[in-house]
Amino acid sequence: MHALVERLYPLCRSITGDGVRRTLEIVGESVPLRIHEVPTGTEVLDWTVPKEWNIRDAYIKDPSGARVVDFAESNLHVVGYSVPVSATMPLAELRHHLHTLPEQPDLIPYRTSYYAETWGFCLRENTLADLPDGDYEVRIDSTLADGHLTYGEHVVPGRVADEVLVSCHVCHPSLANDNLAGIAVATRLARRLAGADPWYTYRFLFMPGTIGAITWLARNRERAARIRHGLVLACAGDSGALTYKRSRRGDAEIDRAVRHVLRTSGRDHTIVDFSPYGYDERQFCSPGFNLPVGSLTRTPYAGYPEYHTSADNPGFVSPEAMTDTLETCWEITRVLERDRRYLNLSPYGEPQLGRRGLYGSLGGRSDTKQAQMAMLWVLNLSDGENSLLDIAERSDLPFAVVADAAQALRGAGLVKEQQR
Amino acid sequence: MHALVERLYPLCRSITGDGVRRTLEIVGESVPLRIHEVPTGTEVLDWTVPKEWNIRDAYIKDPSGARVVDFAESNLHVVGYSVPVSATMPLAELRHHLHTLPEQPDLIPYRTSYYAETWGFCLRENTLADLPDGDYEVRIDSTLADGHLTYGEHVVPGRVADEVLVSCHVCHPSLANDNLAGIAVATRLARRLAGADPWYTYRFLFMPGTIGAITWLARNRERAARIRHGLVLACAGDSGALTYKRSRRGDAEIDRAVRHVLRTSGRDHTIVDFSPYGYDERQFCSPGFNLPVGSLTRTPYAGYPEYHTSADNPGFVSPEAMTDTLETCWEITRVLERDRRYLNLSPYGEPQLGRRGLYGSLGGRSDTKQAQMAMLWVLNLSDGENSLLDIAERSDLPFAVVADAAQALRGAGLVKEQQR
Amino acid sequence: MHALVERLYPLCRSITGDGVRRTLEIVGESVPLRIHEVPTGTEVLDWTVPKEWNIRDAYIKDPSGARVVDFAESNLHVVGYSVPVSATMPLAELRHHLHTLPEQPDLIPYRTSYYAETWGFCLRENTLADLPDGDYEVRIDSTLADGHLTYGEHVVPGRVADEVLVSCHVCHPSLANDNLAGIAVATRLARRLAGADPWYTYRFLFMPGTIGAITWLARNRERAARIRHGLVLACAGDSGALTYKRSRRGDAEIDRAVRHVLRTSGRDHTIVDFSPYGYDERQFCSPGFNLPVGSLTRTPYAGYPEYHTSADNPGFVSPEAMTDTLETCWEITRVLERDRRYLNLSPYGEPQLGRRGLYGSLGGRSDTKQAQMAMLWVLNLSDGENSLLDIAERSDLPFAVVADAAQALRGAGLVKEQQR
Repeated sequence: MHALVERLYPLCRSITGDGVRRTLEIVGESVPLRIHEVPTGTEVLDWTVPKEWNIRDAYIKDPSGARVVDFAESNLHVVGYSVPVSATMPLAELRHHLHTLPEQPDLIPYRTSYYAETWGFCLRENTLADLPDGDYEVRIDSTLADGHLTYGEHVVPGRVADEVLVSCHVCHPSLANDNLAGIAVATRLARRLAGADPWYTYRFLFMPGTIGAITWLARNRERAARIRHGLVLACAGDSGALTYKRSRRGDAEIDRAVRHVLRTSGRDHTIVDFSPYGYDERQFCSPGFNLPVGSLTRTPYAGYPEYHTSADNPGFVSPEAMTDTLETCWEITRVLERDRRYLNLSPYGEPQLGRRGLYGSLGGRSDTKQAQMAMLWVLNLSDGENSLLDIAERSDLPFAVVADAAQALRGAGLVKEQQR
Repeated sequence: MHALVERLYPLCRSITGDGVRRTLEIVGESVPLRIHEVPTGTEVLDWTVPKEWNIRDAYIKDPSGARVVDFAESNLHVVGYSVPVSATMPLAELRHHLHTLPEQPDLIPYRTSYYAETWGFCLRENTLADLPDGDYEVRIDSTLADGHLTYGEHVVPGRVADEVLVSCHVCHPSLANDNLAGIAVATRLARRLAGADPWYTYRFLFMPGTIGAITWLARNRERAARIRHGLVLACAGDSGALTYKRSRRGDAEIDRAVRHVLRTSGRDHTIVDFSPYGYDERQFCSPGFNLPVGSLTRTPYAGYPEYHTSADNPGFVSPEAMTDTLETCWEITRVLERDRRYLNLSPYGEPQLGRRGLYGSLGGRSDTKQAQMAMLWVLNLSDGENSLLDIAERSDLPFAVVADAAQALRGAGLVKEQQR
Repeated sequence: MHALVERLYPLCRSITGDGVRRTLEIVGESVPLRIHEVPTGTEVLDWTVPKEWNIRDAYIKDPSGARVVDFAESNLHVVGYSVPVSATMPLAELRHHLHTLPEQPDLIPYRTSYYAETWGFCLRENTLADLPDGDYEVRIDSTLADGHLTYGEHVVPGRVADEVLVSCHVCHPSLANDNLAGIAVATRLARRLAGADPWYTYRFLFMPGTIGAITWLARNRERAARIRHGLVLACAGDSGALTYKRSRRGDAEIDRAVRHVLRTSGRDHTIVDFSPYGYDERQFCSPGFNLPVGSLTRTPYAGYPEYHTSADNPGFVSPEAMTDTLETCWEITRVLERDRRYLNLSPYGEPQLGRRGLYGSLGGRSDTKQAQMAMLWVLNLSDGENSLLDIAERSDLPFAVVADAAQALRGAGLVKEQQR
């Protein structure tokens, strides 16, 4: 995953343009993507697909002619969606187009202006402080013109048409945690699921933030109704603890599954309530859709000083953290996949487990005890009302132990699976 | 407000009689009152309007003929509703009619005997301790005879017939916090509402405790059904923190509005559950009526050592505290007035706020951020289920910010008001 | 109660056999028992009544012929349900049949093997450590043959057919807390209820654990449907605090009644959620029955080091602890017996209690205040929705005070009892 982050890092992505296309090409080497190109001007819900932006070069030359700010050094130097400019102006005038972080003077900020046509440069405060007075040559060799919005879709087919959505944004230029790490984790998760013959159909969306999600929703209203669970993945690689932000519903199965996985894993973690700000859960959880989609991050957006600066580079994300995020996602899908209701076929009194060899047949000592408790819990609560996740929560046992117990009981003919 | 407290302080009020009439006359100088006179013997719910009590003079003369206890010094000296007496008796016999506070020897207690015909005097323990043996002349020049129970009503008309009730008791003699401060705050609140063109009709009741509320309820059963929210105001002027006692329902809108105002104001405060003891919320919240009426006080009844003693004088209540109570009441009415449901007309995805000038159009920097969050929350939760107060609670934003955001969104045609 | 514990202690009980019969005979001297004998092989729910086990003697003789382990010293020495054996074998082979507690070397453990035919001895680790090598004579003079499962039933008739179940297990040999104390408390509770002309019919079950409860349930399916409340009593005599384990329902009236009694009694106590492990609540709370049956113990099973060892002897249980358990049970029945709904016949405003002599008519000073508050609460909440227990919980007043208040109000014609 870290190699993918490093490979994607130099590309200049924005909400449209060739940076996104190249990113999807590279992701497509790992998992086949269906690429969608939606023309500028297309009406999508309350929005309109904007012009496509591309950039080849940009710089500021100081009075001596030296490139003091150079797009070739970092694509963060140019405000995203800057219109082309080629001019010479005194520093005082140029300053109106310069963005720095006075409190982090060595870092380049990340800025965009998608929906107001303007231009600008981002640079280190320390660079700005050293600039002499005089006339500066500024040039942005960009185009902002009719074109397309591009997004990619990968589907892992399941046994049912009900879907699990995994979405991540692909519109940020050289920022590693936000969101190359999310792209990398999603890609690897998709590959692992493909080998698991899943129950649900898993749909992975690689889209520009906001406008991408809105475009997808506009074009997939009926499909959206099939989404049973969903996760927006972002900031998946920093060293902070995992944070789960609940869906708007608050107690959807995805919310309960993630909470269960985080709790029983023993990982440090934080769970926060939904709020209508953040990543594309904003769109999936808008009231008209109200989809059961939460958001999984490590440190959430704006929660770390490197956020939206040049310090969010590949060194800021670690293979260990991305692996941890991936494993958590995997465990979440294990819960979603295996959760269902069973019906106790012998509900009057406890069935005699010993006679059926169900005591002590399940491995080592303390495992056995947990497995036996899980069997008793599954039998006791499988009255048609409780799912395995309900049982895991009430018994405070790991979901997998409960699901294994249910499987053993089913093998012994003591419970039957209910339609789900 | 403090001037009103001082002016009302000397009057000898009880549950009936000229003290109440004179009090209502004075309140009526600030807000027009409709005065009701209900004859003795009238049956009101389970009760009967009692005889009217009036008193002109009362004293105890010691064996030397000196007035050692004198109604003219403080009307607390006479037990309320004392029957007339004119007699001479030894101290030993007189003692059966004397009430003191042994643990607060410098204070005169406040005592009444509304429903058992008797007489008595209240005096300082220190005074009692100094009384020599001998024969005492006692005289209470009172009348207890058929007459009327008097209460006053002031209505601030609103745009709808649904009512907000504000009630305070007017039956205590020279006690400032209990309840002249409440009378003063209610009077000022009524005046401020009159200038505010309110949505609700506000009904202010100035009534003797218990029997007054029971009389009003007996005569206004149908009107009571129109009461949508209500507050019983008392002990509104001491230096303690505000205390809100919930209505019997516990989660009525008034309960939630007061909690929201107290929380978001940053004021120290206490919220307690309903109990069937206290002021006239007991009657409004009796199970047959079960009105959404809570009680707002500063330090609640019996919670301060000056309670029901001569130390509850105008010096015990402060203009600042009364102003704070008034402002809180006002903010509560602001919530009640503005609370309603809106419907997001663009519920699929977020509408594009920038295009409509809704980003940054609302004032200073951090205000703007709060205003933008409020707009996102209003859009996200305005699905027909959530009121603005619901949204303020879930978003943890001040109600006014949420209501302003809703207004801005309505102006942009993004939400519409639902019938309330 | 302690005398009963001492008398029952020496008997060798198991899930079947003469030890149980003799135990029930002795209990039957205090309360008449109906004895049921259910033949081996009878199918009961998912189980089958096992063979009957009886034992007369058992010992291990060391190479010198000395009885180093002797059933006559303690019936714990023999693994329950051991098949007969008469053999001589070297210590190394014998060891496979020996059970000790290495960490409690002075105690004899308690072991059984009901459903797998085998034999074994339990002994002190210290005894085992001293055994010399050589040939040992082992003998268990037992019979495992067709016979019966025995249980006893005592009914205290009530005014209605609805039942309260009190169940305790009688299958443990010389163990005092688990469960002779429970048997003793149940016996005494039954006697006290018999003198109380109860509303409910109380059914006391003295049964072997698991198979006894399953047998009773199999033979009483219709009767089980009449069980309105129930308690499984065990570990009723140790010095620990009381522990209540909720029924599977979690908020059944029995759960709320026990919580109320424990809280308002001021006793240290613990309340734990239901789990499908423990005593016979497992069977009563199986999903097909789902009866409102909780479990009351002092220190729960396996929660004390003496558990299932020879240290659980009559010295481990105290008269004081058993009395405390008994009084708690009694108070619980007082709540169940008196709990009902009343309807306020004067629900509009407070009725005038003074006129009816209800103020101050109820005893001493602070009692009076509590009684008056209880009257106000009963009047306020008796709207047809709230039971006396609901009112006691919401008012935080002791149930008995609330129930007395309701009785006084009923006497005054202010409330009427609703059918229950």
